[in-house]
Amino acid sequence: MIHFTSEQFLELIPKRDMRAIARLITLQENKRKELRPLMAQLYRMAGKARIIGVTGSPGAGKSTMVDQLVVALRKLGKSVAVLAIDPSSPFSGGAVLGDRIRMATATEDPDVFVRSLATRGALGGLSRATIDATTVLDAAGFDYIIIETVGVGQQEIDIVRTAHTCLVVLVPGMGDGVQALKAGILEIADAFVINKADRDGADQLQKELRVMQSLGVVSESDWQVPILRTIATEGTGFDELIEQLVLHQKWLDSSNAGVVRRQRAMEGTLLRMLQDFVIERAVDGHVSEFQALANRCMKREVDPYSAVGELFSSAGLVTHK
Amino acid sequence: MIHFTSEQFLELIPKRDMRAIARLITLQENKRKELRPLMAQLYRMAGKARIIGVTGSPGAGKSTMVDQLVVALRKLGKSVAVLAIDPSSPFSGGAVLGDRIRMATATEDPDVFVRSLATRGALGGLSRATIDATTVLDAAGFDYIIIETVGVGQQEIDIVRTAHTCLVVLVPGMGDGVQALKAGILEIADAFVINKADRDGADQLQKELRVMQSLGVVSESDWQVPILRTIATEGTGFDELIEQLVLHQKWLDSSNAGVVRRQRAMEGTLLRMLQDFVIERAVDGHVSEFQALANRCMKREVDPYSAVGELFSSAGLVTHK
Repeated sequence: MIHFTSEQFLELIPKRDMRAIARLITLQENKRKELRPLMAQLYRMAGKARIIGVTGSPGAGKSTMVDQLVVALRKLGKSVAVLAIDPSSPFSGGAVLGDRIRMATATEDPDVFVRSLATRGALGGLSRATIDATTVLDAAGFDYIIIETVGVGQQEIDIVRTAHTCLVVLVPGMGDGVQALKAGILEIADAFVINKADRDGADQLQKELRVMQSLGVVSESDWQVPILRTIATEGTGFDELIEQLVLHQKWLDSSNAGVVRRQRAMEGTLLRMLQDFVIERAVDGHVSEFQALANRCMKREVDPYSAVGELFSSAGLVTHK
Repeated sequence: MIHFTSEQFLELIPKRDMRAIARLITLQENKRKELRPLMAQLYRMAGKARIIGVTGSPGAGKSTMVDQLVVALRKLGKSVAVLAIDPSSPFSGGAVLGDRIRMATATEDPDVFVRSLATRGALGGLSRATIDATTVLDAAGFDYIIIETVGVGQQEIDIVRTAHTCLVVLVPGMGDGVQALKAGILEIADAFVINKADRDGADQLQKELRVMQSLGVVSESDWQVPILRTIATEGTGFDELIEQLVLHQKWLDSSNAGVVRRQRAMEGTLLRMLQDFVIERAVDGHVSEFQALANRCMKREVDPYSAVGELFSSAGLVTHK
């Protein structure tokens, strides 16, 4: 394992040194507290990358779609980093991501970076890990950062929502169709992508999506959410997809909606960091006191509603109100 | 809308007054801070209910299974409360739950309570809402509280993990079979329930589960995780399911594993409450300052890694270390 100092990270990351980038993302998962000053500096360098979120129904071919999107963006000369987020344990996600990382490495393209985040840490740990990894990749100067989620739960929706543009990938013939999807997923879509569009049922799916749009389930704004079609395994439909990404970016830049959206995303980020911070203060380094308090709650000697105040003062967090 | 005072809640909830229970669960979602003293008192009354978590693959028939479990428990003279957790917006979950609530109301059984929690509040809001609702129902003296999750994301797994016994419901013929499930869901199972067990593929599914068990993916302990079969629509297989619930309870009560598990669950609960508490202090009542800070982060005048400390002091939370 190579060791880097903070100074080395600060020098190497903006030069897009892949080993330094990979190392810092890994370190962040374990040494968040110690790395805060470094991350603060990197954050100030960041802010130029365009962040695309990709989520959607299981089996929709999201990974293949993202791979093709990378290919299409590379043709335009853009550098691309992919963060594949899998909230399940490494056991299930490992193999697939391993393949993809090998693939990316095989191309030896210095303008492509693929990384999976599959750790299940503390509460909301994955959201926070994604925020930190995005900061590192943004500071490294990637033009595009694609955040791909494997699942479709609330946590994944929260993660993808922080992107500039959210793609929701669907596939024809899902049985219950659009109704089976969580409404939350429809609401965050800036574009729908019907993948495997050569399958039976693509027209039907498109029709159902239009109905959902007319019902107002889809996000409300003057951005008309497009319904695109791709066949990722053949690389079909990606020119139009990129065209729509560019159009959406222009719309964001020229309307107030983009500002409102960045503001909301930043508020979410701040809340996550605040929650992390308090846990660092109240729990890390006080684990035995914390466990003893939980034990007293368990025995009902104290209730957790009151215990929280105790945790605050034991951590040196004084509340003045 | 009926209004209850804290004193009335304290009097009516232990008498299992359904209107008071329903009202307090609703209030908790919006007035958490004000209700903390009341919840602390109710928590001290609680601790007797047996909490069963039910999760599993979409379309596995979880709701029907839970309904039948309620019927089976009622036959044994047990009172049962059901919390159906749907992290998606009310749009998708509303109708189904509406039906079930009507059904429960139609039976006019004072020993059955059905409630959905579908609110998408702040971070981890649903976990916290479930904890609070469980406290209310436990204080109300229900023998069993069934927490049923509609989804299968990380948040749902975290919620179900707080139960005494976790049932993971599967259905034959899911295509990719067990591999398609998140490993996290297999790890929390105290019992697998193959529902729709009259379908083709039930034997195959059972075999796959045994393989997963032999691979050590399933929870490690001296509790042998049983694989049960039900046909919920016909009420078949519930005697054995209840038998296993009782066996698992006995195992928990007689081994150290039960204590370890309650301790871990309580630690999770305390962390959630701590996170809520800090947001109350730092954000609620300071919304405009909070938004202004997020805005400065957005413009990169300050970085969120440093901004968190500012939030703490502006909220009167002084850190002494």
